[in-house]
Amino acid sequence: MKKILVLHGPNLNLLGKREPDIYGTLTLDEINTAIQKEAEADNIEIKIYQSNHEGVIIDMLHDARNWANGVIINPGALAHYSYALRDAITSCNIPAIEVHITNTCKREPFRQASVTAPACIGHIQGLGLEGYLMALRFLAVHN
Amino acid sequence: MKKILVLHGPNLNLLGKREPDIYGTLTLDEINTAIQKEAEADNIEIKIYQSNHEGVIIDMLHDARNWANGVIINPGALAHYSYALRDAITSCNIPAIEVHITNTCKREPFRQASVTAPACIGHIQGLGLEGYLMALRFLAVHN
Amino acid sequence: MKKILVLHGPNLNLLGKREPDIYGTLTLDEINTAIQKEAEADNIEIKIYQSNHEGVIIDMLHDARNWANGVIINPGALAHYSYALRDAITSCNIPAIEVHITNTCKREPFRQASVTAPACIGHIQGLGLEGYLMALRFLAVHN
Amino acid sequence: MKKILVLHGPNLNLLGKREPDIYGTLTLDEINTAIQKEAEADNIEIKIYQSNHEGVIIDMLHDARNWANGVIINPGALAHYSYALRDAITSCNIPAIEVHITNTCKREPFRQASVTAPACIGHIQGLGLEGYLMALRFLAVHN
Amino acid sequence: MKKILVLHGPNLNLLGKREPDIYGTLTLDEINTAIQKEAEADNIEIKIYQSNHEGVIIDMLHDARNWANGVIINPGALAHYSYALRDAITSCNIPAIEVHITNTCKREPFRQASVTAPACIGHIQGLGLEGYLMALRFLAVHN
Amino acid sequence: MKKILVLHGPNLNLLGKREPDIYGTLTLDEINTAIQKEAEADNIEIKIYQSNHEGVIIDMLHDARNWANGVIINPGALAHYSYALRDAITSCNIPAIEVHITNTCKREPFRQASVTAPACIGHIQGLGLEGYLMALRFLAVHN
Amino acid sequence: MKKILVLHGPNLNLLGKREPDIYGTLTLDEINTAIQKEAEADNIEIKIYQSNHEGVIIDMLHDARNWANGVIINPGALAHYSYALRDAITSCNIPAIEVHITNTCKREPFRQASVTAPACIGHIQGLGLEGYLMALRFLAVHN
Amino acid sequence: MKKILVLHGPNLNLLGKREPDIYGTLTLDEINTAIQKEAEADNIEIKIYQSNHEGVIIDMLHDARNWANGVIINPGALAHYSYALRDAITSCNIPAIEVHITNTCKREPFRQASVTAPACIGHIQGLGLEGYLMALRFLAVHN
Amino acid sequence: MKKILVLHGPNLNLLGKREPDIYGTLTLDEINTAIQKEAEADNIEIKIYQSNHEGVIIDMLHDARNWANGVIINPGALAHYSYALRDAITSCNIPAIEVHITNTCKREPFRQASVTAPACIGHIQGLGLEGYLMALRFLAVHN
Amino acid sequence: MKKILVLHGPNLNLLGKREPDIYGTLTLDEINTAIQKEAEADNIEIKIYQSNHEGVIIDMLHDARNWANGVIINPGALAHYSYALRDAITSCNIPAIEVHITNTCKREPFRQASVTAPACIGHIQGLGLEGYLMALRFLAVHN
Amino acid sequence: MKKILVLHGPNLNLLGKREPDIYGTLTLDEINTAIQKEAEADNIEIKIYQSNHEGVIIDMLHDARNWANGVIINPGALAHYSYALRDAITSCNIPAIEVHITNTCKREPFRQASVTAPACIGHIQGLGLEGYLMALRFLAVHN
Amino acid sequence: MKKILVLHGPNLNLLGKREPDIYGTLTLDEINTAIQKEAEADNIEIKIYQSNHEGVIIDMLHDARNWANGVIINPGALAHYSYALRDAITSCNIPAIEVHITNTCKREPFRQASVTAPACIGHIQGLGLEGYLMALRFLAVHN
Repeated sequence: MKKILVLHGPNLNLLGKREPDIYGTLTLDEINTAIQKEAEADNIEIKIYQSNHEGVIIDMLHDARNWANGVIINPGALAHYSYALRDAITSCNIPAIEVHITNTCKREPFRQASVTAPACIGHIQGLGLEGYLMALRFLAVHN
Repeated sequence: MKKILVLHGPNLNLLGKREPDIYGTLTLDEINTAIQKEAEADNIEIKIYQSNHEGVIIDMLHDARNWANGVIINPGALAHYSYALRDAITSCNIPAIEVHITNTCKREPFRQASVTAPACIGHIQGLGLEGYLMALRFLAVHN
Repeated sequence: MKKILVLHGPNLNLLGKREPDIYGTLTLDEINTAIQKEAEADNIEIKIYQSNHEGVIIDMLHDARNWANGVIINPGALAHYSYALRDAITSCNIPAIEVHITNTCKREPFRQASVTAPACIGHIQGLGLEGYLMALRFLAVHN
Repeated sequence: MKKILVLHGPNLNLLGKREPDIYGTLTLDEINTAIQKEAEADNIEIKIYQSNHEGVIIDMLHDARNWANGVIINPGALAHYSYALRDAITSCNIPAIEVHITNTCKREPFRQASVTAPACIGHIQGLGLEGYLMALRFLAVHN
Repeated sequence: MKKILVLHGPNLNLLGKREPDIYGTLTLDEINTAIQKEAEADNIEIKIYQSNHEGVIIDMLHDARNWANGVIINPGALAHYSYALRDAITSCNIPAIEVHITNTCKREPFRQASVTAPACIGHIQGLGLEGYLMALRFLAVHN
Repeated sequence: MKKILVLHGPNLNLLGKREPDIYGTLTLDEINTAIQKEAEADNIEIKIYQSNHEGVIIDMLHDARNWANGVIINPGALAHYSYALRDAITSCNIPAIEVHITNTCKREPFRQASVTAPACIGHIQGLGLEGYLMALRFLAVHN
Repeated sequence: MKKILVLHGPNLNLLGKREPDIYGTLTLDEINTAIQKEAEADNIEIKIYQSNHEGVIIDMLHDARNWANGVIINPGALAHYSYALRDAITSCNIPAIEVHITNTCKREPFRQASVTAPACIGHIQGLGLEGYLMALRFLAVHN
Repeated sequence: MKKILVLHGPNLNLLGKREPDIYGTLTLDEINTAIQKEAEADNIEIKIYQSNHEGVIIDMLHDARNWANGVIINPGALAHYSYALRDAITSCNIPAIEVHITNTCKREPFRQASVTAPACIGHIQGLGLEGYLMALRFLAVHN
Repeated sequence: MKKILVLHGPNLNLLGKREPDIYGTLTLDEINTAIQKEAEADNIEIKIYQSNHEGVIIDMLHDARNWANGVIINPGALAHYSYALRDAITSCNIPAIEVHITNTCKREPFRQASVTAPACIGHIQGLGLEGYLMALRFLAVHN
Repeated sequence: MKKILVLHGPNLNLLGKREPDIYGTLTLDEINTAIQKEAEADNIEIKIYQSNHEGVIIDMLHDARNWANGVIINPGALAHYSYALRDAITSCNIPAIEVHITNTCKREPFRQASVTAPACIGHIQGLGLEGYLMALRFLAVHN
Repeated sequence: MKKILVLHGPNLNLLGKREPDIYGTLTLDEINTAIQKEAEADNIEIKIYQSNHEGVIIDMLHDARNWANGVIINPGALAHYSYALRDAITSCNIPAIEVHITNTCKREPFRQASVTAPACIGHIQGLGLEGYLMALRFLAVHN
Repeated sequence: MKKILVLHGPNLNLLGKREPDIYGTLTLDEINTAIQKEAEADNIEIKIYQSNHEGVIIDMLHDARNWANGVIINPGALAHYSYALRDAITSCNIPAIEVHITNTCKREPFRQASVTAPACIGHIQGLGLEGYLMALRFLAVHN
């Protein structure tokens, strides 16, 4: 049975409450429930965490080396500057997929580039909750 | 019944033959067969085209205004300079998803940014054939 | 009797239908009718074409070498990257005026500069349909 | 009866004398006479000023708030750095058209961009005296 | 017997007529006759095409996969932005040499870099018609 | 009674001890005492925290959603790269004022821009302890 | 008794009338009245000027050398390019505070940086009329 | 007898008083006396002006067209942004020499380039008062 | 007896396991043992920490103010963006040496510059474990 | 009889020994022998030099003014920064062709541009030894 | 008696012969004769050297430490990249003046900035031979 | 017995005399004596050279191919532009360590990057004479 780590980065705990015109009205709990349900359908065991601390997210990625077959990560704004997170994903040596709820290409210039994306096998943007589920289904089958 | 236009841009006709260490060994025909099969499973009617001509792709997008509910587009290298294609996607006013087989963030600098992505609702990169199928499933349900 | 070529570039066939809050509600047919009427008033013979193909527009400019006294060109988004179109205008050696319906300076950064404008004698932006008519009247009298 | 302010910026008082191979041989007086004549034909009341002082030009724009229906402005080299002039045009809340006698796109790099143009509804470049007359005719009818 | 594809990009059909002070007075026909003659001397079979359409040039490169041992390409202004053409050359997996009639390093800034040159084994600039003949002789012997 | 959160970012715990020629000799305790005194004078309830951890500061901002009417934040060097902090301020949806003890415009280039300032309603720089007190008085009355 | 010069730069005479959604509805007269009232409360003698002329503002700063203990300056758009104004502030050798009514960090890119701010001891942005009053109170007590 | 215009730009009236560690202790009056004395020795008629107003300096340059054989200009900080001043110098069509008292290359980055220098025949920097006298002697003999 | 703080930044806990072709096969434990041994030979008391948390590293640096005579820091990827860490090193006012196991100049562009290095007295790159030992020996003798 | 100077710049003496996977296995002696042989076939008198000293290469170019009809130069890495060499080529006023053994466009970014190429009539890259021979044959016939 | 070193950099030996439309028709010998004559009039002992070798020029500057009171240097194109020369001038600790015969600001972009000028007390450009004489007279009297 | 080449680049002959506040008071002779002593202690045979000539340093590196096991190079300012030196180090195929006496990261922007460092196995900065000794000890044991 495959095991997947799902990581939500800074400020994603406020989903549904934070700028709903940009991020939608689904709360993180609702998103996590949907992810959990999908995982069960795909016969995958998952752990889901959210943290506003770059260091905690890195620690979790390191820990995943010992048990996970894949990683789904929404780094939030860390995607735009955290080279330490990038190195952590690379160090893990586990296939990772980066997910963003919004299409960041449509937003402020600083959101155009992700410094963590080159450490992942792929990324999905702008498809909301579905982005997480797609990534889960992909990792269920591939790698 | 939903109708989706699937567009493959320049050089994608050579998939499977072109730099297989980068793009994999699936041919475009095999990819299209898989897309067709997925469409049937999702009860979607699709049309699939490939062209090496920017103008032809723009014409097809314009034509889709009259019949399609969604667009899946792999612009190939046009993603990196064709503002005319970007305008065409915007002009269509149909939800579009941009798909790239490889994770272009890992490759040459000119592939880091997509000028067409801001005209789409989202994009998927690096997940190979699955990227197309994910996009199809998304459009089957949403929008 | 003067002969003028009027060229509309990519996506301009959708005028009136495409983002009317930006480009206005006049269709290309209505614009062309107004241009035709102005040409008659100015005693000018005109040919009007629209194409979404860079190559077709270049071919038309080359052909104009044999018959036209002036060119009015709205390159659409090609203005922002088509150095081949720029060379085609220069190669023609016919006075050309670049027209844009909107004031592109007010829009996205990529629309700030026109790579084709240096090949023209002048350009007119932001004055809608009138831009074409002004250009026509100018070429009727000058050069 | 419409009222239009026509403003000539720094160094334009030397037209006809200054670098005639670039700016032509028409003097500012001759240009103003032609503008005046066109205004009469269009049944427009105009005031024409020239100043080498950024502050004076801003003052005149502010004053125009009280009487003018439109502004035609050739900012000269101020176009390339005067954000104060840009703000003055925006502050006026009157439709303004920027005119340049030469096609500045063909000249030194610093002349490629106009910081004042985004504050105008449109701009006309490279068509010499005609640029002013075109702008006048446009404002006579529109806005 | 070796088979070589010779491709002339946009605006090169006007050679001899277009800006002769820059490009010289030899017409494309005269250049092609010289290339044909050299090919015969080198015992090479060649096909020569010119097109103003990026898509057509890409199609021809793809077609060359089936018959050619080498490619000589003068991409014209496409050299400066067509990443799709670059990918097409790479995809062909045939040794290609880029030729420019003029030394583009001496000209406008946008002509300083070729985005297609990295896909070729080498390039020759500024040596006029001889550039093509040199490339032909090289491919006759090497690769 | 208004409630305000006052946040001091990394290294500000060393105020008075750290580079006193740049940051002055007031210790953080002395500054906090003055802020507390001002708050009492303004009839405001305040909480003051300092942390060297980006994640802790984000957590505190999230927590403030539940009780605070305003935020005063000196992000220290986080101002120059922490897009996660910027998003946290925006997510809070509480009026925030950014304060810097020094005029960072006078210092190293990397201190010229604040990525967090656009998420605040305003900012105050270079006025030392007074900056905090000014911000407090402002929030006491406005918003 | 302290003496302070308050300077308003270009276009600030239109406050309240100019883009009220950005700059608010208070007129310059109302702002000046409030500043005057605050000055009286602080027992400060002030002189207030507004000019659209860079040169006049520089002259006033030079004159202030002879009588003022402090300067409060809202340079308007001059903040973004007037190195002469910057030098004038430095030359005065009087403590100056730069004030902007809006948070310019939230606006167009050209407003991100102030070339005059490094010549001041500090600056206040985005706090409207209060910014002036804060600066006044600061100078009343400090320096 | 040759006639030379000597122009001092913004803030130069404060020479000797302004930042003497950078600009030295000679006042503008002392500098002008030395220039006047040199002019007499060289049998040159001179007019010397100082202004803090860009427009006044442009006016003076225009006026010099009617009487002067040469111009010596220290544009002060206008050297770094006033394209209008650059155009004024070019328009005058009189040999001009730019002088700076300090070696601006040693100072802030914004002082590295002079936008007015390309309009002059030459420039002298860092040699204090002597720079003016050298320029005067040069114009006395040459051009 | 001298006291030195040795700090390892994010992801260095994975040394020996993480990308061994880049970072080598020595584990952090082995490295720390070697450092400890060297310290004993040099008669230095050391404390060694590793953390993936920027804030923890800053806290440790602050703490070192109270006991350490020197700092050896390998900031990992924090070297490339953590201005807060840079300020922390400066604030400590203890001689620090930055060490990198690899020669980061040979790697990705983002690793070319270290924003923390200017806060140190020196740095050593590319010499693996030896870099730490060299730094230790240096601090044993100097400062 | 034509006389040609062939110049090899820094490090080319190590050809065949230096990075043979990049530069091939032909030694400079073998290359020079081939050049000599070609020169004889073309009835050209040649002198061949190699130097690692920019100054020596400039001296040789100056000397060539007195005897040579053409120059073939491989500047090695000097191509990327030696403006003095560029000026030397221009000063010679002899037709020069720049040759590089490798296609530098495929390599490190600093090798993308040649500052010496604009001083030559043309350049040849990536064709190994043949590049020299081509250049020789060209100069034998042209110019 | 003062002693001055006059240094001419690369390619200046060709003065009068090299691009006379840019550099004039005076030969280096004629220039040196004039410099010698001026030195005698100023009662200065001079040594004049020209070299195309950066290293030789640095050696001469070092040697001047032992005997010279001032340096006049025309670094030619070395001005635009030789940081070693810049360091040599600074190391000498003798007042140096940089001279260029032409006004390099009017020429190619790479000539806009001098990396050696910040190491000099001042510089003179565009005044031909006179530039050297001016520098000589200045050093005769000052420093 | 290992053999090491120690190279000092331009201006390092002036160590101890040149800007002692930056480079310290040790002369090059004193440094070389210390290096020699260390070499003896490490049982290494060394040759030490200093040159102000880029070409001489390249020649020495080439010569070292025949006898040396390692290189220690302080390229001085050549580090910031000499791509020829970089290629020479790479061509040698001997392990090289770059040493700088000062921490160049703390100094002028042009000293931030070393173009030669990527050709070395590592580099040491800011540790004065010790940097050389550390490098020597490293090469004594490793490689």
